Amino acid sequence: MIYLDYNATTPLAPCVQEGMLPFLAEHFGNPSSGHAPGKAAHAAVDDARVQVAQLLGAASDEILFTSGGTESNNLALKGSFDVAPPERRHLVISAFEHPAIAAPAKYLERRGATVSTVGCDARGVVDPGEVAAAIRPDTFLVSVMLANNEIGAIQPLRAIAEICRERGVLVHTDAAQAVGKIPIDVTQLKVDLLTVAGHKLYAPKGVGALYVRRGVHLEPLLHGAGHEAGLRAGTENVAQIVGLGIAAEFASRHLDNSRPRLESLRDRLWSQLRESIPGISWNGASAAMLPNTLSVNFPRVRGSALLARLPDICASTGAACHSGEASLSATQRALGLLPQIAEGTVRFSVGLYNDETEIDRAANQIIAAWEALR
Amino acid sequence: MIYLDYNATTPLAPCVQEGMLPFLAEHFGNPSSGHAPGKAAHAAVDDARVQVAQLLGAASDEILFTSGGTESNNLALKGSFDVAPPERRHLVISAFEHPAIAAPAKYLERRGATVSTVGCDARGVVDPGEVAAAIRPDTFLVSVMLANNEIGAIQPLRAIAEICRERGVLVHTDAAQAVGKIPIDVTQLKVDLLTVAGHKLYAPKGVGALYVRRGVHLEPLLHGAGHEAGLRAGTENVAQIVGLGIAAEFASRHLDNSRPRLESLRDRLWSQLRESIPGISWNGASAAMLPNTLSVNFPRVRGSALLARLPDICASTGAACHSGEASLSATQRALGLLPQIAEGTVRFSVGLYNDETEIDRAANQIIAAWEALR
Repeated sequence: MIYLDYNATTPLAPCVQEGMLPFLAEHFGNPSSGHAPGKAAHAAVDDARVQVAQLLGAASDEILFTSGGTESNNLALKGSFDVAPPERRHLVISAFEHPAIAAPAKYLERRGATVSTVGCDARGVVDPGEVAAAIRPDTFLVSVMLANNEIGAIQPLRAIAEICRERGVLVHTDAAQAVGKIPIDVTQLKVDLLTVAGHKLYAPKGVGALYVRRGVHLEPLLHGAGHEAGLRAGTENVAQIVGLGIAAEFASRHLDNSRPRLESLRDRLWSQLRESIPGISWNGASAAMLPNTLSVNFPRVRGSALLARLPDICASTGAACHSGEASLSATQRALGLLPQIAEGTVRFSVGLYNDETEIDRAANQIIAAWEALR
Repeated sequence: MIYLDYNATTPLAPCVQEGMLPFLAEHFGNPSSGHAPGKAAHAAVDDARVQVAQLLGAASDEILFTSGGTESNNLALKGSFDVAPPERRHLVISAFEHPAIAAPAKYLERRGATVSTVGCDARGVVDPGEVAAAIRPDTFLVSVMLANNEIGAIQPLRAIAEICRERGVLVHTDAAQAVGKIPIDVTQLKVDLLTVAGHKLYAPKGVGALYVRRGVHLEPLLHGAGHEAGLRAGTENVAQIVGLGIAAEFASRHLDNSRPRLESLRDRLWSQLRESIPGISWNGASAAMLPNTLSVNFPRVRGSALLARLPDICASTGAACHSGEASLSATQRALGLLPQIAEGTVRFSVGLYNDETEIDRAANQIIAAWEALR
C-alpha cells in the first residue's frame, strides 16, 4: 500500500500517538474538575495551547480548540456574522473554498447574509485586487483559504489581509491544508482568524483550532458551560488536544527539513509521469505551491477509472471529503478546467512517511495503469 | 486516589481503549476516501453506529455522531429552531438543565425565541403537568434532561413525550448522564431527539451522538461536506467514534449487573456518612434515581473546604463542568436549597471501577475531615 493522500488525512506521527496515550488511559480527568486528575488534564490542555500558538506565532490566549477544521470554519463565519452590526451582512469568499466554508456561507444567506465570490486565475490564485473590488461598506468578513486543498496553490493572504485591515473588515483564512506544510506566522499574515485541522498535520481526526486575534469578538457556535474562555463549550477533548499540541511542536521542528524533502518526492513523481504520459498536465504548477501536492490531469482516462486499477495506491480524484461526487469540484470549476480534462484529474499528496522507493513504485504502477486504459 | 466523580467524566473501559488504538494507528484513513484505508474507516464508523443504535433501541440511521454532549444539545435546540416555521418560536426547558441546554436557549432568545422554564419538586422531579401547561401553540420544542447530572433524579420523560406528541411538539432529552447507567429505549421513551455524551459512559471525551427519530428534520450546526447524512459536516473522528460504539456495546452487556452493584456501593457510602454525620441530607433521595449518584449536604461545612481536606478523594461540589462558580447551581436553585445548605453540597458519583474497600476508606476519610472542620 502506497499512501499518497496526505491532503485527505495523515497518519498520526509516532510522537503524537505516544503523547496522547496517557491522556486516554491514566490521565482521564475532566479539566473542569478541581481535583488532581482534573488539574492534570487542565494543565495538559494549557500546554497544548502554547504549542499550537508557537507554531502560528500567536499568543496562547488566541488559540481556541474545536472538534476540527469544519467547526473552526463554521465558528469563524457564523460567529462573526452573529456579532456583526445588523447593517453589515455581506460576506466575501473565494470560488474554491472547501465546503466547510461554502456551506456555512449558504446557510448565512438563508439568515439574511449576501455572499460575493471571487474567482482565481488559471494557476489557482485569487487576485487581491478582486477581493478589494468585492468588499462593500456592509462587508463583515472576508474568508479566503491559505492553500487550496486540491491543487495546493498558496493564496496571497497577507495582501488580502492588508486590504481588509484598511477597509475595517475582518479576515479569516482556512489554513487546514497549509498548517504544518509551510511556515505560518499570523502576525506576518495579518489575518484575524485562522483555521487549523489536526488530522492534516499528523494529529488525530476530531480536533482542530481557531486562531482568534486578541480583541476579535465572536459569538460561540457551541453554547454551554464556560470552556475555552467562553468561546467554545463542551468538555475538552483532552487526549486529542494533547495530540494536536505535540503535532504542532513536531511541525515546528520538521518544517524546514520536510519542505524540500516533500518537494523533491513530489517532483520525482511528476517528472516520471510527465516523461511517460504525453499530454499530462499539472494543475497550478506555476503558482506558489504547497510542497506536497500534485494535482494532474491524465489525458484520455477518467481519474476514477485509473485509481480503480491501482488498488495499492491511495490518492484522490477530488478532495477526499467529497470524492463521491461525480461533478466538477469547486476548484476545478474555478480553474476553468474543461469537463473532459477535469474527469482525468488525480490528486497525489505526499507526506513525511513516503520515500523515493515508494514514489518510483507508484510512478511505475500509475504509468502502467494509464497505458492499459488509454 | 479514590475516584468518586464518574458523573464528571469516566475513565475509558479497557475494551474501549483496546478497540480504539488500531484506529489511531494503522487504520487512519479518511472515511470519505474511496481507497482501502478510507473504506476501512468508513466501515468502522458504520459498525459503531449500529452499536450505539442498539443501546438506545434505535435504528442505525437515526444515530448521528457529534463532538460530544454539548454539540448534540446545541444541534437539537438550534437545529430544530432553524427549521421551525417562523411563527413557532417558543421553547420549553426545565429549570435545571445543564448549561449546554440553558445557554443555547439564551442564544435563541437573542434570535427571537421565547423560552419557558418549568421547575421541579423538592425531589428534583419535573411535573409533566407543568410541561403540558407551558406548551403553547407556537412551541417548537420541549427539552428536559433524562437524569439530572447533579442529583441523579430521573425525569418522567415518557409522560412528557406523550404530552408533546399529542400537542404536535418535538421533544428532546439530554440523556448524557443516563446513557450507560439505566436502560434506555427511545421507542418506549417516545422522544424525538436524545443526546449521548461519550465520556460519561467509559468512551473518550470529544465524541457524542444525537438520536434523531426518522422523519425529524434539523438544520445542521456544522455545515460543510455531506458527512453524517448531511446533518453534521466534518471528517469523522473515527477512533473516538469506534470507542463510543464499543462503550455502547459494553454498556448493553454490563447494565443489568452494574446497576445493583453501583446502588450498593452508593448506599454503602450513604449509610456510613449518615451514621456519623448528624444532619447530613441526601438531595433527591426519594426520587427515582441513577444508581450511582449521591448528592449530599454536609452540615456546618462548605463542600469546597471539605474536598480541599481530602486530596485523595475525587468528587465535585457542583457539576464539574462549572464547579469553579461559587453561586448556587441551577439544580440547587430549582430544588430550593437554602444557600447555607447548598454550600455544603458534595456530589459523589461512583462507577464500575470502585469497590467496597474504596468506599469504606473514602467514608472514613470524609467523616474525619468533616469532624475536623465542623
